[in-house]
Amino acid sequence: MIKVGIVGGTGYTGVELLRLLAQHPGVELATITSRSEAGMPVADMFPSLRGRVALKFEDPQSAGLRDCDAVFFATPHGVAMAQSPELVAGGTKVIDLAADFRLKSLDEFSKWYKIPHTAPDLLEEAVYGLPEMNRAAIKSARVIANPGCYATAVQLGFLPLVEAGVADLDCLIANAASGVSGAGRKAEVGSLFAEASDNFKAYGVPGHRHLPEICQGLEQAAGRKVSLTFVPHLLPQIRGILATLYARVPVDVDVQALFEERFAGEPFVDVMPPGSTPDTRSVRASNTVRIAVHRPQGGDTVVVLVAEDNLVKGAAGQAVQNMNLIFGLEETTGLTHIPVLP
Amino acid sequence: MIKVGIVGGTGYTGVELLRLLAQHPGVELATITSRSEAGMPVADMFPSLRGRVALKFEDPQSAGLRDCDAVFFATPHGVAMAQSPELVAGGTKVIDLAADFRLKSLDEFSKWYKIPHTAPDLLEEAVYGLPEMNRAAIKSARVIANPGCYATAVQLGFLPLVEAGVADLDCLIANAASGVSGAGRKAEVGSLFAEASDNFKAYGVPGHRHLPEICQGLEQAAGRKVSLTFVPHLLPQIRGILATLYARVPVDVDVQALFEERFAGEPFVDVMPPGSTPDTRSVRASNTVRIAVHRPQGGDTVVVLVAEDNLVKGAAGQAVQNMNLIFGLEETTGLTHIPVLP
Amino acid sequence: MIKVGIVGGTGYTGVELLRLLAQHPGVELATITSRSEAGMPVADMFPSLRGRVALKFEDPQSAGLRDCDAVFFATPHGVAMAQSPELVAGGTKVIDLAADFRLKSLDEFSKWYKIPHTAPDLLEEAVYGLPEMNRAAIKSARVIANPGCYATAVQLGFLPLVEAGVADLDCLIANAASGVSGAGRKAEVGSLFAEASDNFKAYGVPGHRHLPEICQGLEQAAGRKVSLTFVPHLLPQIRGILATLYARVPVDVDVQALFEERFAGEPFVDVMPPGSTPDTRSVRASNTVRIAVHRPQGGDTVVVLVAEDNLVKGAAGQAVQNMNLIFGLEETTGLTHIPVLP
Amino acid sequence: MIKVGIVGGTGYTGVELLRLLAQHPGVELATITSRSEAGMPVADMFPSLRGRVALKFEDPQSAGLRDCDAVFFATPHGVAMAQSPELVAGGTKVIDLAADFRLKSLDEFSKWYKIPHTAPDLLEEAVYGLPEMNRAAIKSARVIANPGCYATAVQLGFLPLVEAGVADLDCLIANAASGVSGAGRKAEVGSLFAEASDNFKAYGVPGHRHLPEICQGLEQAAGRKVSLTFVPHLLPQIRGILATLYARVPVDVDVQALFEERFAGEPFVDVMPPGSTPDTRSVRASNTVRIAVHRPQGGDTVVVLVAEDNLVKGAAGQAVQNMNLIFGLEETTGLTHIPVLP
Repeated sequence: MIKVGIVGGTGYTGVELLRLLAQHPGVELATITSRSEAGMPVADMFPSLRGRVALKFEDPQSAGLRDCDAVFFATPHGVAMAQSPELVAGGTKVIDLAADFRLKSLDEFSKWYKIPHTAPDLLEEAVYGLPEMNRAAIKSARVIANPGCYATAVQLGFLPLVEAGVADLDCLIANAASGVSGAGRKAEVGSLFAEASDNFKAYGVPGHRHLPEICQGLEQAAGRKVSLTFVPHLLPQIRGILATLYARVPVDVDVQALFEERFAGEPFVDVMPPGSTPDTRSVRASNTVRIAVHRPQGGDTVVVLVAEDNLVKGAAGQAVQNMNLIFGLEETTGLTHIPVLP
Repeated sequence: MIKVGIVGGTGYTGVELLRLLAQHPGVELATITSRSEAGMPVADMFPSLRGRVALKFEDPQSAGLRDCDAVFFATPHGVAMAQSPELVAGGTKVIDLAADFRLKSLDEFSKWYKIPHTAPDLLEEAVYGLPEMNRAAIKSARVIANPGCYATAVQLGFLPLVEAGVADLDCLIANAASGVSGAGRKAEVGSLFAEASDNFKAYGVPGHRHLPEICQGLEQAAGRKVSLTFVPHLLPQIRGILATLYARVPVDVDVQALFEERFAGEPFVDVMPPGSTPDTRSVRASNTVRIAVHRPQGGDTVVVLVAEDNLVKGAAGQAVQNMNLIFGLEETTGLTHIPVLP
Repeated sequence: MIKVGIVGGTGYTGVELLRLLAQHPGVELATITSRSEAGMPVADMFPSLRGRVALKFEDPQSAGLRDCDAVFFATPHGVAMAQSPELVAGGTKVIDLAADFRLKSLDEFSKWYKIPHTAPDLLEEAVYGLPEMNRAAIKSARVIANPGCYATAVQLGFLPLVEAGVADLDCLIANAASGVSGAGRKAEVGSLFAEASDNFKAYGVPGHRHLPEICQGLEQAAGRKVSLTFVPHLLPQIRGILATLYARVPVDVDVQALFEERFAGEPFVDVMPPGSTPDTRSVRASNTVRIAVHRPQGGDTVVVLVAEDNLVKGAAGQAVQNMNLIFGLEETTGLTHIPVLP
Repeated sequence: MIKVGIVGGTGYTGVELLRLLAQHPGVELATITSRSEAGMPVADMFPSLRGRVALKFEDPQSAGLRDCDAVFFATPHGVAMAQSPELVAGGTKVIDLAADFRLKSLDEFSKWYKIPHTAPDLLEEAVYGLPEMNRAAIKSARVIANPGCYATAVQLGFLPLVEAGVADLDCLIANAASGVSGAGRKAEVGSLFAEASDNFKAYGVPGHRHLPEICQGLEQAAGRKVSLTFVPHLLPQIRGILATLYARVPVDVDVQALFEERFAGEPFVDVMPPGSTPDTRSVRASNTVRIAVHRPQGGDTVVVLVAEDNLVKGAAGQAVQNMNLIFGLEETTGLTHIPVLP
């Protein structure tokens, strides 16, 4: 059994990690920390866990994180890079669901996250935890940078086109929309029901933190600079991301075959038949990503649709997938839930 | 492995049965029927099942229902009573998720469902599948009348008071609210998003079909007539029932203890601590019912709150629970999903 | 033109007052205050008002409230009772949308609101602003206690039965449900979209602040004590209250006629035909309350359904209705919006 | 008073027309037709109109449409082109909210709507009712083709760039999302609450009927062919369209000024300050369109955001605006409702 700890379990990625790990056959949930809620039974905050998770939130200081085989950070950025070096030195694997280890460039990190990076060595060795790109490296990693929710969907949707060299990399467009759980469990006016319900809007148009993360991944795949316009939107629903991607593909290529071949054998990527339009509920509460690819009116513009549950493949599920890879388990262990529909 | 068939798999109870049974370790999904959709892969209708359920809808005539160990009817009322006699005679267990076998009185059945009953013998032997009331009888049943969604919640909430003889049985009140999936997957104007969203209303005030079913159960427990006012409401959410029950309890009794003792050991009933207010999301997509009991201002009126997922404990989950009991499996097999929150 | 000021305009009752008053033909919006947002154009916070309201939030100190003919308090409780005495002394009419002047008993006020009352003289003369009960007194009032949202719906629904003396006053039950806007625009976890959406629950079961307010009104109508069980619920929708009321009416009386006669001529109360089930959207964004009355199965229990927009008739609309009465305008002036459906 | 008739009043554009026209100071609602519901009071179907609209649905044959000054068609396509010639010949102005008169090319019409056009003469003289493009022609029109909901938003958002000749017309992208009311009040499984709630998806990717309509308008403005990729999406909300438009603008031009100048004086177009992100609720239930324009990271791609209420500016409101223009009323008459927020 893998002995697992969670740092910062009071948010939505935290409770989703708990849901997945408490049902995972190869995991022993050893500890979960919250400075503010130390002493409170986890199931008092999240009654969905009553009878299933007996842990109490522990103070980070006293929690036995160093005795864990793996520690997940479901914290605001800045926490993982502070606490990881000691854990890693002691042999504990770290999987950070925040952004601390996502951007390889120290400058980019401090530009977008407004703090200096305090663990540059770990950053250098950290592996970007998108298994469909980096499976081999993940297996031997000590620190995983679990990808952002938008970044997962957008990269997976563009990768086949970019790797095949068929897309015009100077004008990629990613129009994406996320459920409100993506904003976390912070008490903010903009995330109130009476603000976000029955409403739709774009945000972060001048620049969203997932933009450099996406570009880094696509540029690694392309071997050159890419120019991406990324416009996220806020959906009046709890879970789910749909990325609608637009790429100019001026060459005559079977894009359907391209996607099917690229993701053949991938346990969590479903390339749907031509003409499909994946909806977010078809992946709700599951680790599967569904993708469809279109070339409307046979023109130059290819449209890729990617549906993902932002809390699962976009966060906690992908983190568990990475844990499975690191510890040599079957990659799908504990992640076989069928989506909840309706 | 239990060989299982589903009759009428195109509705919400059908797809929920598929979700649960496809993940059930003791079940082999053998056939699923739909007259109108025969030939269509199930996963084309419900993309959440892509890669998980390979069946196609079959014509009821040609489907091998008689070779099944158990057949679930997820059909409108009238179908199960027509097809069950032959199946039961052949040794197949029948679990009807519609109302054909719920009301023991032929008169009541035809009064509320507007058709005569065509299988009165089977009706007589059918067992009402509320395990918390009838566990022993369920284990040896050949035909199960799976309870209605409201009926499950309301009966479970009143039972401890009724069995203990502490409630005034002449003025029970059940105020209940259900998500729209309870209305099924029929194309009706009243169930449209633009009608039901951002809206709340009562319906069926003069008399809802679950009323006689609830009264039958409570009267069996009380050994006398009960008088119940039952007002259902339509909630702007997909899943979930909350029943808010009011009973006059003029005696001094520890109602919290009453409920805890009544449901001690029940795997799917969670009696919450005093002061709790169960929310429907705390049981979303799970077979658990959560109950809290209050006596506001120490008065004579006791308030019982019951939260249930109408598609799971209120339909497909309870049906699987009944199947487990009939076939001697652990009662919780395939039903241990942790609720999806948020 | 009535010169109007609003104290505390950053919440939902504030913006709803602005919507109504900016379209009111007899009103000049003179000033709106917010300590925290002083200097910000109102339309920057609420873009729905762009081009329609040119005011900026002003510091309460410098705002010309004393020059106003009427001042609305859309503030947390405690503010109106501190500032009203000076305004009233200067001839300004005060309409408090909070609870400062609702409970006539000083003890009850401090018991439920946890602060002592600091303006007992004004409290004594304040008129409870439910026009259907107190129209004459409202016309000559200097201070109006604008009723609570639940309190408006529950009192209107019970009044005909209570005034006619036909209901058993020892076991009234008010089961009510409100949209999330009723919780205000405060940043609280419980009001987040990802908490309140797709979810339903009761709250405040041991005792909600509208309970004594409702009882006070009903007891005034009955001339004796009443015993009420009041259970509010939180709906996954922005606006709307539905109160489902249960009363034992053991006498043979035509309850439909009772309601129609009681509210004949009332411009904002619509008694629907027998068998109706008013939905909240049928009053959305309007000042109308719709009521239907049932006697299921001809039994002793009468069910009254009351639909209201909590921000209009339950708050801002009723406040404007009271203003109209005070200043001798037609009662419906500025309140004739047709509900928005769908 | 303009004597007005409505053909086909049982859908969402019909009830929205009723809401607007019943409050319009210059209109007399003379008749409303529905073949299927003839004889039913309109307010029985739409209780929001109780006490405000006394009409009953009339059979189209017997209704006095020819006595009306103006007739609105809120019908499926095909109806208006059949009935308009006679009405127009009799001097009645026709405003068609369906698509019968939108596409000037007979071939395009029959290609996209699968029926031949039966009134080509009227089609030729019909004026496309987008006042911001065609105000002068609308004033003297006998037949108005009221624009589609998406088409209104997308054209308004692209027009300033296209007219100024600064956008690359070979790769325009319109990513748009609409509330479910856009699908009408037809009983269809895909529009059920339990299908559309908590869900988001694209649809019509290979080609949506508003595509040729948008291209026709933009090409008229550009004086040349344009190439547009248009991907509509279905939002889990009742009302509201947000169009997120992408255009390559390789020249250095002040796009904010371009938009402000283009729409200066337009009563229903609000160009928001730089950096804004209009949300759909900021125009809910109003005829206003709000637009913001961005150039992320100073690149070549300009992003235009357009928020609209699909039932008002996208349908009934724009139809009333056109009626006002035709009859010489102030353009904003009856259309000054402030958006309902929250």
